[in-house]
Amino acid sequence: MDRVADALADDDLHFQNLAELLSLQKFLPAGRVQAAMGSGRHVTPYNCYVAPTIPDTMDGIMDGAKFSAKTMKLGGGMGYDFSPLRPRYATIRSLDSHSSGPVSFMGIFDAMCATISSAGHRRGAQMGMLRVDHPDILEFVDAKANHDTLTNFNLSVAVTDEFMTAVRNGDVFPLRFEGKVYNWVGARYLWNKIMSATWDWAEPGVVFIDRVNAMNNLWYCETIAATNPCAEQPLPPYGACLLGSINLAKYVEEGDEGHLVIRLRDILEDIPTIVRAMDNVVDRAVYPHPEQENEAKSKRRMGLGVTGVANALEAIGHPYGTVGFRRILNEILRAITNETYRASAKLAREKGPFPLFDREKYLKSAFVQGLDKDTRECIYLHGIRNSHLMSIAPTGTISLAADNVSSGIEPVFSHGFTRTINMPDGLREEHVDDYGVRVFDHYGRTADKLTVQDHVDVLNVAAYWMDSSVSKTCNVGADVTFQEFKDVYWKAYLGGSKGCTTYRASGKRHGILNADESGPVHEGSACYIDPETNTRTCE
Amino acid sequence: MDRVADALADDDLHFQNLAELLSLQKFLPAGRVQAAMGSGRHVTPYNCYVAPTIPDTMDGIMDGAKFSAKTMKLGGGMGYDFSPLRPRYATIRSLDSHSSGPVSFMGIFDAMCATISSAGHRRGAQMGMLRVDHPDILEFVDAKANHDTLTNFNLSVAVTDEFMTAVRNGDVFPLRFEGKVYNWVGARYLWNKIMSATWDWAEPGVVFIDRVNAMNNLWYCETIAATNPCAEQPLPPYGACLLGSINLAKYVEEGDEGHLVIRLRDILEDIPTIVRAMDNVVDRAVYPHPEQENEAKSKRRMGLGVTGVANALEAIGHPYGTVGFRRILNEILRAITNETYRASAKLAREKGPFPLFDREKYLKSAFVQGLDKDTRECIYLHGIRNSHLMSIAPTGTISLAADNVSSGIEPVFSHGFTRTINMPDGLREEHVDDYGVRVFDHYGRTADKLTVQDHVDVLNVAAYWMDSSVSKTCNVGADVTFQEFKDVYWKAYLGGSKGCTTYRASGKRHGILNADESGPVHEGSACYIDPETNTRTCE
Repeated sequence: MDRVADALADDDLHFQNLAELLSLQKFLPAGRVQAAMGSGRHVTPYNCYVAPTIPDTMDGIMDGAKFSAKTMKLGGGMGYDFSPLRPRYATIRSLDSHSSGPVSFMGIFDAMCATISSAGHRRGAQMGMLRVDHPDILEFVDAKANHDTLTNFNLSVAVTDEFMTAVRNGDVFPLRFEGKVYNWVGARYLWNKIMSATWDWAEPGVVFIDRVNAMNNLWYCETIAATNPCAEQPLPPYGACLLGSINLAKYVEEGDEGHLVIRLRDILEDIPTIVRAMDNVVDRAVYPHPEQENEAKSKRRMGLGVTGVANALEAIGHPYGTVGFRRILNEILRAITNETYRASAKLAREKGPFPLFDREKYLKSAFVQGLDKDTRECIYLHGIRNSHLMSIAPTGTISLAADNVSSGIEPVFSHGFTRTINMPDGLREEHVDDYGVRVFDHYGRTADKLTVQDHVDVLNVAAYWMDSSVSKTCNVGADVTFQEFKDVYWKAYLGGSKGCTTYRASGKRHGILNADESGPVHEGSACYIDPETNTRTCE
Repeated sequence: MDRVADALADDDLHFQNLAELLSLQKFLPAGRVQAAMGSGRHVTPYNCYVAPTIPDTMDGIMDGAKFSAKTMKLGGGMGYDFSPLRPRYATIRSLDSHSSGPVSFMGIFDAMCATISSAGHRRGAQMGMLRVDHPDILEFVDAKANHDTLTNFNLSVAVTDEFMTAVRNGDVFPLRFEGKVYNWVGARYLWNKIMSATWDWAEPGVVFIDRVNAMNNLWYCETIAATNPCAEQPLPPYGACLLGSINLAKYVEEGDEGHLVIRLRDILEDIPTIVRAMDNVVDRAVYPHPEQENEAKSKRRMGLGVTGVANALEAIGHPYGTVGFRRILNEILRAITNETYRASAKLAREKGPFPLFDREKYLKSAFVQGLDKDTRECIYLHGIRNSHLMSIAPTGTISLAADNVSSGIEPVFSHGFTRTINMPDGLREEHVDDYGVRVFDHYGRTADKLTVQDHVDVLNVAAYWMDSSVSKTCNVGADVTFQEFKDVYWKAYLGGSKGCTTYRASGKRHGILNADESGPVHEGSACYIDPETNTRTCE
């Protein structure tokens, strides 16, 4: 903790405050920040990057793979938009030949990532995206409908507003590349294909790409086509995600009347220390490529989020997903986001705003207009140090390391589970209790006790306060019909989220999540439900 | 034929002679030469290339993949030596991490090749090699012991004399990288592993790499570590193979006494026309990369071979593999090789020797010393236009196109078979008779009627006269024991061949070859024989 605090502090006072937050586990920098900063190792503190736009040539693709290889070698995951690649069978005029299409080229990135995964300390992570109007979208949607292809990729479809409107209206929808229509497809047919693949295989995810750009603070100087692998950070080419989380569970204390309360005032007082520290990462990081450094320094983007949310809010009496839970969550995130923006604005007064800051345009952005008036006045006066500030990451490892608090905004996964740990002298099994159970003696609502509607409601509340995005998996029970499943995505779309990811334990891709108590895993794990007939088959 | 002749001719007379040889199918330029020369398409007339030495860095590997992608995109196959890559688990000091080893990196090249295969007119072809003393050799040997990994690769082990001696003596053998010994392995254990993989899966092949270098005409200015995908051309980094074949079957005519004879004098008279044409390809080719052009122009390497050998020699009364067959083959190849060298020397008188020619050193080379005295005098006087001249390629497609003559130096595969042809209006089945059956009314000895010893004997005869190498598959009958199988490789090694490739129809890799008559395919195709116990199991 001292090493990290030392690497991120501005002065002695800042160091003292930061070291205390770190040692109390109130602020959890992302795993990469913890691993890299002050370590002397040539690794990057950025969890993830988005690749440069991939040129539609063999040379360009191979250069892209090389660029990503170097990035991943230093510890960063990669997100890609493969939409600039011409579709399969499209002509390569100079060769009198045909392209094999973006999905085939993803195989190169997949193989490259596999070499990094098997080499380094950390498994390589990749997100591959394709626009819903790309002619190869059907091939892309089915690319992972099995257990063994593109295993080093998460996939997401970049869904447009035009497409969602066509689905609603039952229109036919043009698949096109560089303005040329290659094919027409029934929008509902394509939507059902996407939903059906996700129903079975938990992939592809869906990103509402037009909303991402419409709500982007930097709408005036960047276009976003991809996200990082866990989707909490939509990023432009060369963009990187610098993540950290406020651990709400560690701000729960006994209040004056003997009840447990969340010390929101303490959180708000700690935010300037945190923002200052994260902002310093931008200047003190190792970057795999100079373009990434240039991108980071010209925008100073970061993503501060929360974790331990379920533990904290349930401890003070609001079971996960209830109206009360959502109301408190909304209040807390509103306060945190506004305070974080104000802290960044005050930092701008001291250190200057990010180089691409344009006061008029920035304040016009849709997200900033949703902030409190005094926050916006503060930005008007001082500018702002960081273009983006908020993001809710999955925080799996850091939450586990912080006494196993509930991850991000997810519900408690399990009240206790057994973890196999690789020790120098062999494997060891370790039983780990949920933080809420252990500290607050509270048995929170686990994921399987919630309806998928509860999940989406929480997602939509959190999404409103995140200028980047939210990583959340909406768990879908075995009793949910395919129609209800599809409605989840509509609810996320209409509710203002920038994307939606679901997981059905009864789907064909089983074993990502697992609990030893009462988790979402059902017997007959290879069961699946036919989306057309809604009949359940077990293999 | 006129297009190709026009593109390769020096003058009207040369054009007339060449066009006649082409239209009579007496000289068959390689498929790539036929497809590229004079076509106006931006493709390469070189069938195959060997990649530049792959640097042992992530950037270097990705650059190598990019370099190869461009080469294959223009129609050339690729050979690689992966030995310069540090072994799995070797330290990457700058990252405090470990390498995933050469076999994992081959996955990147495999995926890259797959995108080319599915795109172009021609399936991508790759040869991956690893030295027998590389610490990852066991992983490499087993890398294709299944049906679905590295499917865009042929594999060969680069076997050293040191290793073969260790096998003979039953020594332990050091596996090492950059001078450091990583492991010791019983040489016979490793040899049995290689043999066992080949026995089951027809891979890896074996290349006797020390012999390749010892017999290399350019021993004084290049080191060879890899071959092209079919192994008939050991090449230095950036090297390329320019192939063509003299079709012996078309030189068979009725002699004065009513018997069929091979018009060897006609062949020798035609050789200068052929050498002149092939030499011109070097100057008139499209090269994917300037380094390849520079390499080709500084050595002017080519590989002229023969095809229709079985048809021709059997037509004049020598069944394949008999002593008579081998004696005549030896005579014919001796005459062709010497005449080809003389033609190149005379071309040097007219156009100059290849730039890296060094009279003293060249004439000292082991292969050149095996040529006739007058040939060597001719080289002494004029120099020589081409560093290498002889190579026997598989010639599958061009032999089929030339009225289905027997391929290269292989026996007749089948007296007739049915071929499915993709026509504009759908698939069509076409029955194709063997050229010998149809024209000479001779039913040649098919591959399955031969012993594996017959195959190796023919290979060794041909190898002697080839300055590059010979592509030949030695078919192994179901009655051959594992010990006899291993002896085949010793026979090839001791007999002077530069490598050996076998195929067992009763192995696990089934279906590469197939005949509808009496081919080598046996029922119970998933049968295999345990190399240890020699028991046969059928699945």
